Amino acid sequence: MSRRTAGPEIERLIQILAKLPGLGPRSARRAVLHLIKNREKLLSPLALALAEARDKVVVCSVCGNADTVDPCSLCSDPRRDRSVICVVEDVSDLWALERAGAWSGLYHVLGGTLSAIEGVRPEDLAIASLSARAAAPEIREVVLAVNATVEGQTTAHYITDLLKPLPIKLSRLAHGVPVGGELDYLDEGTLTAAIRSRREF
Amino acid sequence: MSRRTAGPEIERLIQILAKLPGLGPRSARRAVLHLIKNREKLLSPLALALAEARDKVVVCSVCGNADTVDPCSLCSDPRRDRSVICVVEDVSDLWALERAGAWSGLYHVLGGTLSAIEGVRPEDLAIASLSARAAAPEIREVVLAVNATVEGQTTAHYITDLLKPLPIKLSRLAHGVPVGGELDYLDEGTLTAAIRSRREF
Repeated sequence: MSRRTAGPEIERLIQILAKLPGLGPRSARRAVLHLIKNREKLLSPLALALAEARDKVVVCSVCGNADTVDPCSLCSDPRRDRSVICVVEDVSDLWALERAGAWSGLYHVLGGTLSAIEGVRPEDLAIASLSARAAAPEIREVVLAVNATVEGQTTAHYITDLLKPLPIKLSRLAHGVPVGGELDYLDEGTLTAAIRSRREF
Repeated sequence: MSRRTAGPEIERLIQILAKLPGLGPRSARRAVLHLIKNREKLLSPLALALAEARDKVVVCSVCGNADTVDPCSLCSDPRRDRSVICVVEDVSDLWALERAGAWSGLYHVLGGTLSAIEGVRPEDLAIASLSARAAAPEIREVVLAVNATVEGQTTAHYITDLLKPLPIKLSRLAHGVPVGGELDYLDEGTLTAAIRSRREF
């Protein structure tokens, strides 16, 4: 008896969807069924949106952001402060800062963190291009908004060493209590940092 | 400052993906980033597979399975037993039985269960077509493989009443301990059913 249930097209779709983060074989199957049942409302629009993304999305040659234009809409936005660069590990971090409306300067996406274990060397990241951008005369400050992980901090140290000769300010994100966070649930490192960096009322 | 981060194409893709079961806005964003980073290996194949599914997948006019041919490959498979029909609520149940290799007869997908609360009436499900199929002279048995939920059982009762006049066997799935299941974690109903239907060694 054939073990094929619904044709190779559907099986292939399930296999590809199962490779997305957050989806496994089971949830991919559910998603495909949901798509098939909602052909007009979901399957067709998704097929179209993916084809558009495939044809149009490019990586910004300046900052590494994903956009449909190069340089990206952030790099070419005249309202942004072109004297400050915020360095992030990943496009998702850039998106997070943009969603928060937390930054109005430029960005630079490293594309990961240095890692001896995983064999990620400085030349595997967008560090040389950051160096070149930071050396431009209009740059006043570079903010290292890398994650507060060991790899992130190692990468930040490497970059601060590299950029130290430049006449610019180097900064990092503040540590402290997350807004809305409960002290009871925070780790000792965060609490110590929050106490040390306490502010007067 | 613009809150647009990466162009309307990407935002649209995120919005559509977020509607899939198992994905929310956050995981949809992660999935889109993953797709963009793996354009050749993931984004392009997925766009293609979705376009193929959109253009080719049809609902089988006989049994309700999703396939690229109509009648579906199961309905037209000459190796399957054409005298027995397994009735399931959803295509996902059909797929589950096929993955298990548990059934070699034909299927019939109801497309849901009767529900007074959600206003699902017999005419909203593929019940009339089941009635017609079950009345064919070659049919010997109809297995009601609906879920062991209140709605599933209500639907099963309705169908057994409807098909009772026919000269066929009507059966349902056995209740019992799942293979590999631990008694400690099973509900009383399942345990009672398992004791009642106990088999001799």
